[in-house]
Amino acid sequence: MITLASDFGSPYPAAMRGVICARSGARIEDIAHDFPRQDVRAAAFWLREVVPYFPPATHCVVVDPGVGTDRAALVVEAGGHRVVAPDNGVALPVARRLAGEDPTPEPGTTDDGATADVDTGNESATDGAAGIRVWEVEYDDAETASNTFHGRDVFAPAAAAVHDADSVGDLKRCRPTDEWVDLRFPDPAVGETTATGEVLVVDGFGNAITNVPGDVLDGLEEVRVDGEPAPVRRAYAALAEGRRLVTVGSHGNVELAVNRGRGDEAFGVGVGDEVRLAR
Amino acid sequence: MITLASDFGSPYPAAMRGVICARSGARIEDIAHDFPRQDVRAAAFWLREVVPYFPPATHCVVVDPGVGTDRAALVVEAGGHRVVAPDNGVALPVARRLAGEDPTPEPGTTDDGATADVDTGNESATDGAAGIRVWEVEYDDAETASNTFHGRDVFAPAAAAVHDADSVGDLKRCRPTDEWVDLRFPDPAVGETTATGEVLVVDGFGNAITNVPGDVLDGLEEVRVDGEPAPVRRAYAALAEGRRLVTVGSHGNVELAVNRGRGDEAFGVGVGDEVRLAR
Amino acid sequence: MITLASDFGSPYPAAMRGVICARSGARIEDIAHDFPRQDVRAAAFWLREVVPYFPPATHCVVVDPGVGTDRAALVVEAGGHRVVAPDNGVALPVARRLAGEDPTPEPGTTDDGATADVDTGNESATDGAAGIRVWEVEYDDAETASNTFHGRDVFAPAAAAVHDADSVGDLKRCRPTDEWVDLRFPDPAVGETTATGEVLVVDGFGNAITNVPGDVLDGLEEVRVDGEPAPVRRAYAALAEGRRLVTVGSHGNVELAVNRGRGDEAFGVGVGDEVRLAR
Repeated sequence: MITLASDFGSPYPAAMRGVICARSGARIEDIAHDFPRQDVRAAAFWLREVVPYFPPATHCVVVDPGVGTDRAALVVEAGGHRVVAPDNGVALPVARRLAGEDPTPEPGTTDDGATADVDTGNESATDGAAGIRVWEVEYDDAETASNTFHGRDVFAPAAAAVHDADSVGDLKRCRPTDEWVDLRFPDPAVGETTATGEVLVVDGFGNAITNVPGDVLDGLEEVRVDGEPAPVRRAYAALAEGRRLVTVGSHGNVELAVNRGRGDEAFGVGVGDEVRLAR
Repeated sequence: MITLASDFGSPYPAAMRGVICARSGARIEDIAHDFPRQDVRAAAFWLREVVPYFPPATHCVVVDPGVGTDRAALVVEAGGHRVVAPDNGVALPVARRLAGEDPTPEPGTTDDGATADVDTGNESATDGAAGIRVWEVEYDDAETASNTFHGRDVFAPAAAAVHDADSVGDLKRCRPTDEWVDLRFPDPAVGETTATGEVLVVDGFGNAITNVPGDVLDGLEEVRVDGEPAPVRRAYAALAEGRRLVTVGSHGNVELAVNRGRGDEAFGVGVGDEVRLAR
Repeated sequence: MITLASDFGSPYPAAMRGVICARSGARIEDIAHDFPRQDVRAAAFWLREVVPYFPPATHCVVVDPGVGTDRAALVVEAGGHRVVAPDNGVALPVARRLAGEDPTPEPGTTDDGATADVDTGNESATDGAAGIRVWEVEYDDAETASNTFHGRDVFAPAAAAVHDADSVGDLKRCRPTDEWVDLRFPDPAVGETTATGEVLVVDGFGNAITNVPGDVLDGLEEVRVDGEPAPVRRAYAALAEGRRLVTVGSHGNVELAVNRGRGDEAFGVGVGDEVRLAR
């Protein structure tokens, strides 16, 4: 199975679909083609949340603001999955989760209210050495039909080849590499009575999804969000229509929501905004 | 085959797709993921219009304003199809049509212009006893990963199991039930020279689809809509671009339309608005 | 394989999908269902750009402003592909490309700056005699369930039958025809130092795609667009975010773009607008 994910909208993904169908008999399933345009971090977040539900597959991901520059094309292998993507970090968060290095985060034990700046880089790099393997896909710029549509001309053919190969190492265009662009979501600062994080993404319903792990809400019926009290509920429909609430979203993180409404507007927050939670 | 229908937009349905692919080899086809948000009646209408064109299949439907509350999850079986959906009525109109209880409606014979309030409930309940079977899917709230995404954690796994089962009754989590939430579209009042109904849905083209059966237009070249005359035509393109018309839509009902334009705007109507037709 | 392409949005294509699944075991892949509404030329452009990447398949295309009128339904066969579509020209540009009659265009040698009005009609008609075969699909208007949804009632059943037939000629409802509506994109006027064309389509990113062949930019680092200088670059990201540029798009034509922005707005052009390029 090959899945497709991009920020291409329509109809560009159809050309990728055609290229794959012409080269491989793989079943194709879409993840999404409406990721926020050229927002590598949002795509990385959604891939981390969605891909692990699939059985082992090849995932062709193209959110690629650097198309046509000399950024590399990668295959990132973890947990039996193979992610074919540009070398901009988009594949790394999901790879860590697939490799078992990134379970749903648990709250840390930093000082109350302080913004933690924990460098987990080395730790993960060590842990991940066995779990994640990365190849660079060589492609000849002069061979590609277009400098503006590597989804069709580089990533789709690579995904078809990677899917059909017993081992990525069998492909002569793929050479192992230990250098790649990483991408990490910011760590929240979680204390005894407060947690400070930020909005990672806003979904189509308007739910503002933060990087704060959901268990900071354990046992709470109310929490202060940026100083204002808001009810904590397990389900959107636990309150009347239009009421705002704080909940643990399907991704395990704290989410600012409104029953049948938009949480981002009700709480006045957008992607990248700081969110301070306090008991 | 498993079809997916929801109001989730993107990328949440991809997680459902992954869950199903991890549990079943079923072919997956999308019906839609952009049903009007949390509008159970609109979803019920579109399912009734679309699902009967499929060969017998399992249909996983999630328009679910009550997610995370104690509303049940159902399997509704009719005409060889199995619909897995929340217990909010969304599956009943299509089930009645699949069971042959809801053919394209024919005009009644109520008094001219009077608003009929025909209770067809008993009649259908009787007719339907043999044609529709309903099971409740037991799920343990504590087992589900999320209270906000039962599409992924309850309905997708249920759909995979229901699809793969020879009989729904073979599944130990499914127990027959004779209690469920019903949903019926309002009946129009159809007289000799007038018909009064309402707009059930507005489609993406702006066509305002009513609950008035199309044969009230038989033989007419013009009809009064809320007092104003409008041409009756068999095709949008029978009039010049921008001209409004009344036609029989692909669902068999009276539709207010504009050739290459929006009927809802031209006729000044929206979902739920009353529409009075008169010769 | 059957591909689907339309301007139907959602959920109407699902009914087509159901009809096909009920009649054929063909794999179904979507090309797009959000082509600009009733814009036959835009659909024809995108089909020409996307379909050739697929392996030989049956393509069911419904952008059909004339639905319900007496316009014919066609099967257009070329290069091993079969396109089932209304007789409004939408299938002809892709058919010419599949037949090898329409390679990526090369600049002509007309006078500098003059608007060429080259009639390539006869030439192509001659070239294409062997490469393109067209059948009319007979359908009985009285048999169709709807005059407003031939996608479901005419084209989807025809596509299923055409896909499953060894030869289109085997289908008794298909009779060869040599009359059909053609559609040709306007020819640009390409001179030694200037080229005048028009914007054919604007894609979802805002890139304004012209009919001017990309090789007019060969060797240039700058070009005047309607008198104003603009940089010529091979990739969007070759300039800073928000900077406008002229590039050769993935379709091989000159494209007016902005890195991470909308080219149509930055250059002040829309579909059908003239674009004058000068060294």
